[in-house]
Amino acid sequence: MALSYTDAVQLVEKEACHQRTAFLANSEKCSIFNACDRAVSESICSPISTPEFDTSAMDGFALSSVATQGASPESPVTFEVQGTTTAGDKPHSTLDDPTDGISPCVEIMTGAPFPVNPDGDRFDCCAPIEDVVLAENKLTDRRYISLSKPAKWRQHRRLAGGDFTKDDQIIGIGERVNPQHVMAMASVGLTEIPVMRKPRIAIFSTGCELLSGPSNHRFMIHDANGPYLSAIVKKYGANIDFRGVVRDNPIAMEHALLEALGQNKYDVILTSGAVSAGRCDMIPGVINSIGGRTVFHKVAVKPGHPVLFSVLPRGQEGETAFFGLPGNPVAAAACLRFFVLPYLRTLQCQSREQPQTARLQVSKSTKAVLAFKKEADIFRPAILSPCRQTVRIKKDHSPGKTKPFLHANCWAHIPSGVEQVCDEETMDVYPCNFD
Amino acid sequence: MALSYTDAVQLVEKEACHQRTAFLANSEKCSIFNACDRAVSESICSPISTPEFDTSAMDGFALSSVATQGASPESPVTFEVQGTTTAGDKPHSTLDDPTDGISPCVEIMTGAPFPVNPDGDRFDCCAPIEDVVLAENKLTDRRYISLSKPAKWRQHRRLAGGDFTKDDQIIGIGERVNPQHVMAMASVGLTEIPVMRKPRIAIFSTGCELLSGPSNHRFMIHDANGPYLSAIVKKYGANIDFRGVVRDNPIAMEHALLEALGQNKYDVILTSGAVSAGRCDMIPGVINSIGGRTVFHKVAVKPGHPVLFSVLPRGQEGETAFFGLPGNPVAAAACLRFFVLPYLRTLQCQSREQPQTARLQVSKSTKAVLAFKKEADIFRPAILSPCRQTVRIKKDHSPGKTKPFLHANCWAHIPSGVEQVCDEETMDVYPCNFD
Repeated sequence: MALSYTDAVQLVEKEACHQRTAFLANSEKCSIFNACDRAVSESICSPISTPEFDTSAMDGFALSSVATQGASPESPVTFEVQGTTTAGDKPHSTLDDPTDGISPCVEIMTGAPFPVNPDGDRFDCCAPIEDVVLAENKLTDRRYISLSKPAKWRQHRRLAGGDFTKDDQIIGIGERVNPQHVMAMASVGLTEIPVMRKPRIAIFSTGCELLSGPSNHRFMIHDANGPYLSAIVKKYGANIDFRGVVRDNPIAMEHALLEALGQNKYDVILTSGAVSAGRCDMIPGVINSIGGRTVFHKVAVKPGHPVLFSVLPRGQEGETAFFGLPGNPVAAAACLRFFVLPYLRTLQCQSREQPQTARLQVSKSTKAVLAFKKEADIFRPAILSPCRQTVRIKKDHSPGKTKPFLHANCWAHIPSGVEQVCDEETMDVYPCNFD
Repeated sequence: MALSYTDAVQLVEKEACHQRTAFLANSEKCSIFNACDRAVSESICSPISTPEFDTSAMDGFALSSVATQGASPESPVTFEVQGTTTAGDKPHSTLDDPTDGISPCVEIMTGAPFPVNPDGDRFDCCAPIEDVVLAENKLTDRRYISLSKPAKWRQHRRLAGGDFTKDDQIIGIGERVNPQHVMAMASVGLTEIPVMRKPRIAIFSTGCELLSGPSNHRFMIHDANGPYLSAIVKKYGANIDFRGVVRDNPIAMEHALLEALGQNKYDVILTSGAVSAGRCDMIPGVINSIGGRTVFHKVAVKPGHPVLFSVLPRGQEGETAFFGLPGNPVAAAACLRFFVLPYLRTLQCQSREQPQTARLQVSKSTKAVLAFKKEADIFRPAILSPCRQTVRIKKDHSPGKTKPFLHANCWAHIPSGVEQVCDEETMDVYPCNFD
């Protein structure tokens, strides 16, 4: 019996763990302006608490809330404006003597620091500009405000340390930076962060039928796998070298793989095609002949059962993971998604991907149950509704057809052992284009 | 009463429509290897039907299914192997005379073309190698196979035209290319496609409180908006120039905007801050003084109500859209997501974004209802569960706090007029990081 998917993916993750130390040794620094989608090589915490000082949340006047407690329309409370602080200013600190016992206030703009407060709560809160009436004495050049309702203690005052606390984690090792991480890092003054180098991946397509040069004739076909695998692995954040089409010839294949290994830089090599058991399926033999250690060949999955996973000795030092993906485009896509991606996740210290769930919708024209062979884990192209609540499984799927796959947006997973899935049943789905 | 969000977004889309013709005039060609995430500038259809010829879906033997109809373990049917066709070969065409009336067959590999069939269905199907017994006559050097069960008409034969039909649409104008589009385009032989140029966007942060140079002191803060807005707009596929921090000074702001407009290249200019009604909120006046036509200023949304949208005359010709976003980071993020993004979508011929839906989960410690002010459309940072079925609204949200937003992964939308949302109620959500 073929290896189960569950066991296979554990073997993949185990090998990725082995390679991880060497991979992580090459971390680099990256400006936060270029950091999006990069995986960080260590957890990043806030070096400071923010805000670093108390600021006003409104345009208004810093004053004592206690002094406003009797304020009413009939008996407004008056303050003398002793200065203005705008955002970016140092806080107001010198105070004139109050005129005629009138309490002082300081005009304060959104984001500006509150006045220093030598004697307690003289400026604990902000009265917004829309709550006050302004007055000016042209003779003395003094300005006043009056409030006709009480202010609350500390109202519209953003307290120092109210956002990030020093040492709060912003992002954990292996997580990919998104724009919100960038906002948080910028807000605490980080401008450069440590990131892992991008995984380096070489991709080959194999097959004498693939159009690639002057010997092309009309019984050849266009290579769909090379461009697809390059696109999706690049989207995942790896550096891709598409190294072209290799003919179904063991010498040519050995040469191509050894040349790639000799460059001593690839974390992963992917091929598509030539991996099953037919006369032209030369990849398993070639992997043996170049000294590869095959971890598995053939897994109980559909599509993609011929998939091969090996570890190849590299030119001067180290090892390169090798995935021999099937030649049928949708089988290659499934194996990329469910074997190669777990390898890359583990290599980059990322946890296993959690599926989304959705309710199956079986088309009205058929019976309300889909039946599956229960000896394999099945991954079927499917369509998740725009609201993400329901999923339809593509009926016209075939590993060799690209058109049904074009219109899918996720993979539905039917685990080994499940023989049928009913209408409205909840199932696991994985988006085709991972974030 | 302030403009409603519904009306405002229609005004945004209308202005984007006006600019679209000029924007689309600058389309460019792009290799499919670099096309991911680009918006195509015209619909792309398949130039051919695929496969272009009938191929085998298995390694096996092309033969006549009719000739196998009597086959059984007791009375197997024998065929003479008249040749081998592998993928990439021309189809087998010359036939020797059958020996002793034995029917001919052709060994055929997965992906290889079926033999030409001058006299009808002599090779209509493929008998897989695992269904046959091979025999060889060493004297005559002839090879034979025998089948002990009938083959079905056209079994394991992939018919020409069974995947894409000529003129099938692969991608519509304005859609962003994903890896599956790349697979489909590659499979029909497209190597280069027409794409729109990336929108060009200039971003400024405003505020004397923002750290940016030698005059920095400890009552200034770090600019979170410049890096965040740059990151998220870049993720959406635009070309970004972050043009730095501008002080709260009308001359400096005018100078900065006129310099950007003079470059005659930006589709959109974004600023954050200085857009409300306070003494330092100089953007509305500056926009007037440089001849901008303000479409709206202030919209009934929370956060982000001061948002300003104008159209500015450009240096030599044309116009540039201007969005004055609020200075509070989460308000700026909301306005980017719900005003600027609709502009960019419309500019690129993309339809309005459809929300996902999820069931609200209200924390057990509070009452099972969230109350909102009903005069505004409210966009609240929220957390969509990993399975995407339920959503929790961040309680500690504040437009000025970056930490609660860091831990959100979507925006929950509470439309104007809705006063409360109950536990388990379905609501619209938009992912923070759009695909």
